[in-house]
Amino acid sequence: MAEIKKVILAYSGGLDTSIIIPWLKENYNNCEVVAVAADVGQGAELSGLEEKAIKTGASKLYIEDLTKEFVEDYIFPTVKAGAVYENKYLLGTSFARPLIGKRLVEIAKKENADAIVHGCTGKGNDQVRFELAIKAFAPNMKIIAPWRTWELKSRDDEIDYAEAHNVPIALTRETNYSKDKNIWHLSHEGLDLEDPANEPDYEKILELGVSPEQAPDKPTYITLSFEKGVPVALNGEKMDGVTLVKKLNEIGGANGVGLADIVENRLVGMKSRGVYETPGGSILYHAHEVLETICLDKETQHYKQQIALKFADIVYNGQWFTPLREALSAFVDSTQETVTGDVKLKLYKGNIINAGVTSPYTLYSEEFASFGEDDVYDQNDSAGFINLFGLPIKVKALLDEQRNK
Amino acid sequence: MAEIKKVILAYSGGLDTSIIIPWLKENYNNCEVVAVAADVGQGAELSGLEEKAIKTGASKLYIEDLTKEFVEDYIFPTVKAGAVYENKYLLGTSFARPLIGKRLVEIAKKENADAIVHGCTGKGNDQVRFELAIKAFAPNMKIIAPWRTWELKSRDDEIDYAEAHNVPIALTRETNYSKDKNIWHLSHEGLDLEDPANEPDYEKILELGVSPEQAPDKPTYITLSFEKGVPVALNGEKMDGVTLVKKLNEIGGANGVGLADIVENRLVGMKSRGVYETPGGSILYHAHEVLETICLDKETQHYKQQIALKFADIVYNGQWFTPLREALSAFVDSTQETVTGDVKLKLYKGNIINAGVTSPYTLYSEEFASFGEDDVYDQNDSAGFINLFGLPIKVKALLDEQRNK
Amino acid sequence: MAEIKKVILAYSGGLDTSIIIPWLKENYNNCEVVAVAADVGQGAELSGLEEKAIKTGASKLYIEDLTKEFVEDYIFPTVKAGAVYENKYLLGTSFARPLIGKRLVEIAKKENADAIVHGCTGKGNDQVRFELAIKAFAPNMKIIAPWRTWELKSRDDEIDYAEAHNVPIALTRETNYSKDKNIWHLSHEGLDLEDPANEPDYEKILELGVSPEQAPDKPTYITLSFEKGVPVALNGEKMDGVTLVKKLNEIGGANGVGLADIVENRLVGMKSRGVYETPGGSILYHAHEVLETICLDKETQHYKQQIALKFADIVYNGQWFTPLREALSAFVDSTQETVTGDVKLKLYKGNIINAGVTSPYTLYSEEFASFGEDDVYDQNDSAGFINLFGLPIKVKALLDEQRNK
Amino acid sequence: MAEIKKVILAYSGGLDTSIIIPWLKENYNNCEVVAVAADVGQGAELSGLEEKAIKTGASKLYIEDLTKEFVEDYIFPTVKAGAVYENKYLLGTSFARPLIGKRLVEIAKKENADAIVHGCTGKGNDQVRFELAIKAFAPNMKIIAPWRTWELKSRDDEIDYAEAHNVPIALTRETNYSKDKNIWHLSHEGLDLEDPANEPDYEKILELGVSPEQAPDKPTYITLSFEKGVPVALNGEKMDGVTLVKKLNEIGGANGVGLADIVENRLVGMKSRGVYETPGGSILYHAHEVLETICLDKETQHYKQQIALKFADIVYNGQWFTPLREALSAFVDSTQETVTGDVKLKLYKGNIINAGVTSPYTLYSEEFASFGEDDVYDQNDSAGFINLFGLPIKVKALLDEQRNK
Repeated sequence: MAEIKKVILAYSGGLDTSIIIPWLKENYNNCEVVAVAADVGQGAELSGLEEKAIKTGASKLYIEDLTKEFVEDYIFPTVKAGAVYENKYLLGTSFARPLIGKRLVEIAKKENADAIVHGCTGKGNDQVRFELAIKAFAPNMKIIAPWRTWELKSRDDEIDYAEAHNVPIALTRETNYSKDKNIWHLSHEGLDLEDPANEPDYEKILELGVSPEQAPDKPTYITLSFEKGVPVALNGEKMDGVTLVKKLNEIGGANGVGLADIVENRLVGMKSRGVYETPGGSILYHAHEVLETICLDKETQHYKQQIALKFADIVYNGQWFTPLREALSAFVDSTQETVTGDVKLKLYKGNIINAGVTSPYTLYSEEFASFGEDDVYDQNDSAGFINLFGLPIKVKALLDEQRNK
Repeated sequence: MAEIKKVILAYSGGLDTSIIIPWLKENYNNCEVVAVAADVGQGAELSGLEEKAIKTGASKLYIEDLTKEFVEDYIFPTVKAGAVYENKYLLGTSFARPLIGKRLVEIAKKENADAIVHGCTGKGNDQVRFELAIKAFAPNMKIIAPWRTWELKSRDDEIDYAEAHNVPIALTRETNYSKDKNIWHLSHEGLDLEDPANEPDYEKILELGVSPEQAPDKPTYITLSFEKGVPVALNGEKMDGVTLVKKLNEIGGANGVGLADIVENRLVGMKSRGVYETPGGSILYHAHEVLETICLDKETQHYKQQIALKFADIVYNGQWFTPLREALSAFVDSTQETVTGDVKLKLYKGNIINAGVTSPYTLYSEEFASFGEDDVYDQNDSAGFINLFGLPIKVKALLDEQRNK
Repeated sequence: MAEIKKVILAYSGGLDTSIIIPWLKENYNNCEVVAVAADVGQGAELSGLEEKAIKTGASKLYIEDLTKEFVEDYIFPTVKAGAVYENKYLLGTSFARPLIGKRLVEIAKKENADAIVHGCTGKGNDQVRFELAIKAFAPNMKIIAPWRTWELKSRDDEIDYAEAHNVPIALTRETNYSKDKNIWHLSHEGLDLEDPANEPDYEKILELGVSPEQAPDKPTYITLSFEKGVPVALNGEKMDGVTLVKKLNEIGGANGVGLADIVENRLVGMKSRGVYETPGGSILYHAHEVLETICLDKETQHYKQQIALKFADIVYNGQWFTPLREALSAFVDSTQETVTGDVKLKLYKGNIINAGVTSPYTLYSEEFASFGEDDVYDQNDSAGFINLFGLPIKVKALLDEQRNK
Repeated sequence: MAEIKKVILAYSGGLDTSIIIPWLKENYNNCEVVAVAADVGQGAELSGLEEKAIKTGASKLYIEDLTKEFVEDYIFPTVKAGAVYENKYLLGTSFARPLIGKRLVEIAKKENADAIVHGCTGKGNDQVRFELAIKAFAPNMKIIAPWRTWELKSRDDEIDYAEAHNVPIALTRETNYSKDKNIWHLSHEGLDLEDPANEPDYEKILELGVSPEQAPDKPTYITLSFEKGVPVALNGEKMDGVTLVKKLNEIGGANGVGLADIVENRLVGMKSRGVYETPGGSILYHAHEVLETICLDKETQHYKQQIALKFADIVYNGQWFTPLREALSAFVDSTQETVTGDVKLKLYKGNIINAGVTSPYTLYSEEFASFGEDDVYDQNDSAGFINLFGLPIKVKALLDEQRNK
């Protein structure tokens, strides 16, 4: 292992990634460890992180603010696709990983590093997502995943290791759920949640908002404006994507919307159970979908449902930097040309309720839809339509009759 | 038109189908009109209906209770499929029509009738659904659809016609929304709802339950039990399908769940807007889906999402009696072999919240999912998995690198 | 019908469209008939056509050469998509219609005409394709389709009508198959072909080439070069699309390739049987597909198969000018970025045999594929891959075992 | 490794599996090796195999004739599905593996063995297919795959090892292509084929038949009869599946049909190139597809194309014993109820040419398809059909016009 002289470490300052630093130096001949903390809107305390990283043995710390890129280039394209994994999961963790992986490669190249290190477990999806991104931009880069190989098997092992190696451990606000947080969502796994028979104790778990029960008795109305499928304004006020998502998180969280309790199929072959908070995201998906119901024609709308299923798999699996994801995005972008308009929603104790939608490109026409007369639709046409639409059924029945005579 | 001596009329006793009787007699040489009232759980007053039909000119009235068949042979197979039209509509009207159409044919054959008559508008889906069912069982049967051809163009025209022909008109509980009701749902269309910019006035509209705001402040817990994808018990009490759906409607309605406000794409080419109440149905779909997340393996679960999209289209389009619907059902039934278990749900002001799911066939294993050690999953395997899963990405990147040298 | 003063007629000079001219003048108050002959490479005699049209009653004749546009904007995008209808039909007639329909509208607007007239039968697909294109560009344009309404029901009726109205009839080279020809293909329908039990008499039918039996005993080798999915050269010689397709037709036809004998499902609900000659097109599709096997990654290649199925339906149905076709094309174009390279083929008595394929973007790597050692692929990885890929199967089997204990 | 006392070895008698025997005894503490030779119709010499296996160190040899099961339970269900991998590969090797894997488990259980051993390379699909089948029936069974772990890296290494361990080597009919043969097909990989730029030398390679050039100058006509999608007779003579496939192989091979030269995507992430001979299989697929064109309605036929794509992936990946494969088969079987009839084909120098198809369940009706009058189809209906089918296009165009005013 002599060839590893310098590594890039995806670093959060938590216990897991902190003890990796001395472990790397121990196992890779005292190699240089460059730590990289990616800010994807998780709202963690970043001040003091550099000091901590260096105290733990890193040679330096990059703090990378990726939030804007995350929202505009990863989240919004996925919202436009309407991609939801297994009908419930809004992919919060999934699409953050490729972005971070890509930045790790950029820094690794700049630093001329020999390997990239991540602290993901060997049982999860994130290792795949990180490594696929790394392979896409640095196919020959060595990847080190200590959790798959070292002897530490529990949190206690980690704490022992940390103490033995003088790693400062922050035990403030101890919670034992395994979490992942960014500007889009917060996930909770582990402990009592590991048994799907258990009802989640939302009062205890939730951080981004409240439960429906605790939400206010009065509804909140909001209006979201989209241009070509991208949200651009809230309540008539134009704002950038990051601001908009943050505001929606506040409003949604306060009204108890965006909770999901899911048993999902991990890419690596097993099922896992998680509770997700995606307050702003849930509102955005909902609003976008409502707008599409008036802006997309039926054939496009229906086929896009299929595309969305594939898009979700692709994002979940970490295959963001692939020709197929790009081709799917090309499809989606083409459909969004006319997805422009305003969606009014009523948020009330966990509910997102439609309160009116308008678009300059609406394909809904009150005139044609109503049951009265109009100039476009001749009701006699439907007789012909039915006769031809039903012709295969009729022919089959006729031939069956003839055969059975 | 001399050949039409006897017709079968799909009859509800409402204004639309009542005036058809004199119209038929007038236009088809005083033909005999046999009225058929199908009971699909709409809960309408059926007593007095016979008298009314005969007074209006019908020679007799069949009252057909199709509720059990509707629930067991149409609704539950669709729930098992997880079929939802355009991501929101639970197909309440759609799958009632084929069933009624089939019964109309049976009666027409028994009565040796020359034609079947329905009162559907020429702008809607129901005419297609009725007629496809009729073609499937009586391909040569003549179909008469007065709304597509007569000169009556408005409700006022109808009332005038009724008065001129001595048709008794019930104007009790006048509401002007166009509605369709059965054991599964109640739909509302028309008036202010015709503009999707208008928020529905739920307090005024709802009949099967209350709005989330009006629902109780305390949640209601229920447990639904399924066997092979079919709901068989509520709160531990075994019950037949009809009883179960009715109870769920009560409980769901009381808790404000199952409301949908949709702009949908009709088969006949235009968009329409409707508000749907499906309290029990929404709970059933939700519970069934949750159970599947632990009983189906990933590949089956994902592919079944595609099947569900097609199944929904097929049902919506009235293509129930087709080889494709049967083949899709064969697929679905095969997947349901292990969809057996209990789903606990918390109903609260419009929300359906998971409160625990168990199954003797669960594929979820806490042992494998947890991040600790276990005997089944060797974390080292994931390195190999990722390398092969990511091989196409790596190869592409390597070859790109070589080309760019 | 007084409002129709001037119409645009899709005109070929054949019997069907010739007699429409007097029929229009007779039925639409002596309206002006502007004839439009679209050249999509059918190779028909166009000299003399103007004289003939005017003699028959038209006020003028437009001759529109659409061949280049047809090849580049309709054919090649469909080849790139790999779209084949019902696994056999290369869509020759289908994509010509929208193009012609669009041009008819352009001329109708320029001429300020009141209606567009086509000579398609009421039982076929072409009426749909024409009219959908017209609706896309002139939604309020009146469309006249005499074949659906007039009393002429047979060829004899037509001839009688022609003679009664002094329409000159060309009976040179009489053949009774119903045909459609353009630069891409020639189709044959009718007569003995109407019974799928009958073997086609290729010696009698074929016009674009010979049958496999009559083809030379020596194979012909060709090399096709593609850039981003578009064919650009034949045997190393760069040429425009029109020239290339023509040359391929000659070479393919001479070698007996590109015959298809199909029972297909028409959009209007019945099955029909046709024999198609698509010599050049078959070679192009084949070559393009071979090139994609080395240029596309697996996920893209597989998903594109689904896209191709939809694309084929859309083209067959005449829905070219729709948002969905555009979105599908955006997907396809994105995948074609690297579909560049050379495909060598051996044509021999109806066979198209691969004779070598190369691409600067090939993802095939002899080194990785061979069963020996290499630097990229560690065979140990596959154990891990299989364990995770097979985990759902294993878990299911384990849980089954536990249950059955 | 002390726990391995007895293993089951998938054994062919070739070099690869022969040297595994001493290797196992050497590395697993002289464990007992029970060899199993599966006969899936490869036509290999089985006499003398027992003596050879025992001489090489095996304690006994099972010879299992799986041919009938292979044809009836694996091949025919896949033909019914119309499953073709990547549009070309008829899955010959793919579906043999699960069957053999299942039998290995049965013998392992009977023999109370500790592990199952196969001789597949770590770069191929077959290791996956074998191991998935083993996991499905014996999730805890240990699997040994020497090729992934031992030091032998080449054929020379193997020969040296064989000589050093007194393994008798049969060098008769030496060929260096890597092959897989069974009743369905013969595949060739390696050597010059590893470069897709090379044209295969069919004269040298082919074993099951001749090349198109060498095939007779006179065509051969055959008639295949199907019942519910299963071939049951050839030229009017009823015969069992095994006999039928063998006869088709002879006839097809003699006429040069069924050759495929493919670059395919392996499951394990790389592309590989192979030449396949599937003479009888190609005829069966072709005939079945032709029959379906007249027996299946359009919606079923089109959707089944999607099912076929998935079915092919599933089979290729070795996921035969999974709920999804079973559900897909349930779909397929449902569609095959009416796929009964006769298909006449003309085989000529590599071509399979339709020569007539009939079915008692045909949905093709000459009467409806012809362009003349009939009782079923009213041409006026198509105007209504087009107006509704095209309504979304018209509405969009109208609204666009309004906006652009």
